Amino acid sequence: MELFYSDEICGNSLILGEEEARHCIRVLRHAAGDEISAIDGKGRLYRCRIVSVSGKNAQAQIMGVTENWGGHPYTLEMAVCPTKNIDRYEWFVEKACEIGVDCIVPVSGDHSERRTVRTDRLRKILMSAAKQSLKGRVPDVSEITEVKDYIQASGSRDCLKLIAYCFEDGSCPRISVMKALENMAPECTSVCILIGPEGDFSEEEALMAIRHGFIPIHLGPSRLRTETAALCAVNAVYSHFLM
Amino acid sequence: MELFYSDEICGNSLILGEEEARHCIRVLRHAAGDEISAIDGKGRLYRCRIVSVSGKNAQAQIMGVTENWGGHPYTLEMAVCPTKNIDRYEWFVEKACEIGVDCIVPVSGDHSERRTVRTDRLRKILMSAAKQSLKGRVPDVSEITEVKDYIQASGSRDCLKLIAYCFEDGSCPRISVMKALENMAPECTSVCILIGPEGDFSEEEALMAIRHGFIPIHLGPSRLRTETAALCAVNAVYSHFLM
Repeated sequence: MELFYSDEICGNSLILGEEEARHCIRVLRHAAGDEISAIDGKGRLYRCRIVSVSGKNAQAQIMGVTENWGGHPYTLEMAVCPTKNIDRYEWFVEKACEIGVDCIVPVSGDHSERRTVRTDRLRKILMSAAKQSLKGRVPDVSEITEVKDYIQASGSRDCLKLIAYCFEDGSCPRISVMKALENMAPECTSVCILIGPEGDFSEEEALMAIRHGFIPIHLGPSRLRTETAALCAVNAVYSHFLM
Repeated sequence: MELFYSDEICGNSLILGEEEARHCIRVLRHAAGDEISAIDGKGRLYRCRIVSVSGKNAQAQIMGVTENWGGHPYTLEMAVCPTKNIDRYEWFVEKACEIGVDCIVPVSGDHSERRTVRTDRLRKILMSAAKQSLKGRVPDVSEITEVKDYIQASGSRDCLKLIAYCFEDGSCPRISVMKALENMAPECTSVCILIGPEGDFSEEEALMAIRHGFIPIHLGPSRLRTETAALCAVNAVYSHFLM
C-alpha cells in the first residue's frame, strides 16, 4: 500500500504538495481519476481520488476518512541523548516509529559527546517510517534541550516518568522497565522515558530526575548501546500495552 | 574496557593471532608486562599479562578465568530470513548480540527476495558486537538454509519453537510472543524463533511449521520490518528471562 502525505486538507479536498505530487504523478504515474491514500500526519487516513494535476501539485477529492489510523493505546515520549555516531540515533528514530512512539526529544546530558542534531533529517526519517509502517500519525521531534531543563519541565507532568541509567545508586535502587510498567496505575497510559548518552547520565542528573518524580529503571544485565537501550524501552511499553 | 579475542589457548598461555596482536601492540601500544583481557568466544573471559611480542602475534600468561562471562540464562536461536537490503540484516545481527542471542540461522523462504548472505561478514559483526557489549560468548552463525529444511530439522528439537507471521489463519490463531513465553514450561529455557522475509512466510510454510510443533505468534498490531520484528522477538525473550 503506497501512502502520500498532505498538510493541505480543506473540506473534502486534499492537495499533495510539490514533493509528494512529483512522486505520485511523475514517479508512480498516477493521473486524474486514480484512487490514492494519504495521511495528514496527525492520525487520519484519507481515501481519495485525484481530480486534477498541475505541474507543481495535485488536487484530490476525499472519499473516506479513518481516524487514529495505525495508532496505539498509549502515549510515549522518548527523551534520548543523541549518539556520537548520528546514524545510530537515526536508526533508533526509524525503529521507534515503526513500533510506536509519539514524541522524540533529543536531550543533551553532562556526559554527552554530541550536542547538536538535525531535526529536519529526523522528521524526514519519521515521515517515511510512518508511511512504511502504515501509521496515520507522524511522531513529533523537538529541538535538542538540556537534560536538566527537560527534567525540570517534566516535574509537574502527569505521566509515568522513567529514567534508565547503568550505575547503582544505593539511595534509590533501580527496577526493571517491565516491573515499572506493571506497577503503573491502570488508568495511566502516558509514559516518558529518559535514556542517557554513551557516557551514561551523571549522578547529579539521575538524582535530580528522581527528585522530580522519575523512577530509576534498568534494562536488564546486558550492556546496551544508547540506541539499543532506547529501542528496548520503546518495545517494553509497546509490549505492555498491546500483548 | 578493551577486549581481545583468542582461539589459541593452551594451559595458562594465550596467544593473540595476527589481527588481534596488531591491534593490541601497534594500535593500542601494549607491550610485554601489560595486563589485557581476552575472550575465547565460547563464554570465557581471561585476565592475562603479555609476556612476549613477535611481529606476527603476542603471547600472554593467563592470570584468571571467568566462566560464562556476560552470559544469559536462556538459549535463543533466531532463524531469520535475510532482508533485501543486507544492511538491515547486519544491523539486526549486531543488536541481537548486544541484547543476548546464541545462534543466528539465515533462512530462505518461499517469498524471500534474497537467497544468499555473507556469513563471514556476519561473524565479524558478531565478534565486535560481543566485545563491545562485554560478552565472552560470540553467537554462532550457520550457513543459509531453506525454511522448510529448517522446520523439518527442528521438528524433534526439545525447545519452545515459535513462528511469527502476519496473515490470520483461522485453523490456528496466533498468540502474542509474550503470551507464548508465559505459557512455556518453567523448566524450559531454550527457544527458537522463525521470522519471515519482507513478503512474509507462505501459508504452506506456516502450516508445515505448525505441524512440526511451532507455535504461531504475532508481535502486536504494528507493521514491523523483518529486522525490527526479529529484534522485538529477541527483546521479548530477554525481558521474559531477565526482568
